[in-house]
Formats: sequence, structure tokens, C-alpha cells
Amino acid sequence: MSTRAAAFDAPGARAEVEEGTAFTPRFDRDGLVACIAVDARDGRVLMLAHMNAESLARTLETGEAWYWSRSRGELWHKGATSGQIQRVVEMRTDCDQDALLITVEVGGDGGCCHTGRRACFYRTVSWDAAAGRAALAPAGA
Amino acid sequence: MSTRAAAFDAPGARAEVEEGTAFTPRFDRDGLVACIAVDARDGRVLMLAHMNAESLARTLETGEAWYWSRSRGELWHKGATSGQIQRVVEMRTDCDQDALLITVEVGGDGGCCHTGRRACFYRTVSWDAAAGRAALAPAGA
Repeated sequence: MSTRAAAFDAPGARAEVEEGTAFTPRFDRDGLVACIAVDARDGRVLMLAHMNAESLARTLETGEAWYWSRSRGELWHKGATSGQIQRVVEMRTDCDQDALLITVEVGGDGGCCHTGRRACFYRTVSWDAAAGRAALAPAGA
Repeated sequence: MSTRAAAFDAPGARAEVEEGTAFTPRFDRDGLVACIAVDARDGRVLMLAHMNAESLARTLETGEAWYWSRSRGELWHKGATSGQIQRVVEMRTDCDQDALLITVEVGGDGGCCHTGRRACFYRTVSWDAAAGRAALAPAGA
């Protein structure tokens, strides 16, 4: 696959970043920007992952989600092995352009999480005021 | 306001982190965890921000969203000045516990973004294949 190392311009002045039409993603010191993926079927939040400039460029060029795996330290074409390809229907960025929101159609079995669940946020956090501690509800399917 | 510096235990083995009931948020080297806020009214993604242990503890204890402002370098009680308090209806964490998802009821005018818009993701990113560049759609209200 041939991919240009996309030239993302550096962020300009605040007014331009917030109100302008130049896409100037604000990568952090590791060269990453956070990306939320929601399911086009129902808007459910599926996962939060990160993109570097290369994976963001590939995502834009191919229309499929590419991330940067922080744990493996490598480009990650989501679904390449599982079939859970994420076709990007829409990409948005936020006010200060340090986060992305993609709406995706999921291939394969429609899932997303490596644990086999549809989405990664499968546990709720509950607060025990008496104990001053939080705990998770047992993980469902 | 008196707030315990909540004792969040360090993450254990992978199986426990992914399937257990211990809430062991995985803070990054800056002591932060990403938090997605969605609107309880319709599930719309409102914003992505960060929490440190202190703001997470306050969020759990008070039931209102507290973040850590990376730009200002301070605790940030969302809505304290704008009235756009975020009452947390539900908090979730993801498989590796390095991200949070909160469902919130928004006070004040129901908005979230400091630019005056309801949500921060008010611009779409479009790809110009011929030019090999991405651009943003003009910002709406």
C-alpha cells in the first residue's frame, strides 16, 4: 500500500483552530491524537484509540480506520485479522483539534473489542460512598 | 470541599484488568485518563477531556464531572462558571481501563463547548483525494 506521509499543517492561532477550515490536528508529544469510534447503526460508543499522522493519513485515504497501537508500538489496521474493519462514514474533530470522532460501519461480526464484545465499555463503575471506593460491575458479554 | 485523595489501586494482571471487578484506572505518565462525555438525552458525544486521580475521585464522590484542564494545568469543575454542570448518570471504563465513558445530564443551557456550541465536535473532516489533503467543513452553530 502506498501512502503519502500526509502533510498535516501545524496548528495556527486559536481562532483559526477553533473556527477555521484548516485541518490541523494537534498531536501530543508522542505524536498521537485520541479518536473515538461510534457505531453508525445506533451512535453507540465502541472504543477509544489513538492515531498518529501516518494512521490518520491512511484512514483518510482508504476510508477505513487505522490506529496506532500504543501497546504494540505499530500501525494497526483495525479488523485486518478479525474482519472487524471499520468503514469510516464520517470524521469530526473538536474545538481545539486534539480529538477525533469517527462514525463507522463495522465489518465481520460487527464487534470491536478484542475481548469478543461489541464495544470496549462493557463495565460500569459504581461508587461505594461508605467505603470511599469505586468498583466495577461484573463484566457482561 | 473535602475530598479524599482516592486510593485507586494499580492495575493488576491483564485478566483482572479486563474481566475483574476492581477499578484500576490506568493513568498515563502525566497521571491522566481520557474521558468521553455523552449526553443522556440522546447519546450524542459531547466532548473528550481528561481526568487525573483527584478529578476522578471528585467526580465519583460528587456525581458531577470534574476534569483536569491540561491547558490551564488545574482542576476543572465543568460548569462551575457557565452553569453547564454535568451530572453523571453512569460511568463506564473500557477493556484495559485507560479510558472512561460518562453519560451526563447537562445543566444550564444544555451546552458543553466553550465556543458556545452544544458539543465540541462541530466540524466534519473531508478528504480531497486529488489534492491529497483534508479540510474541515465551515463551523456551524
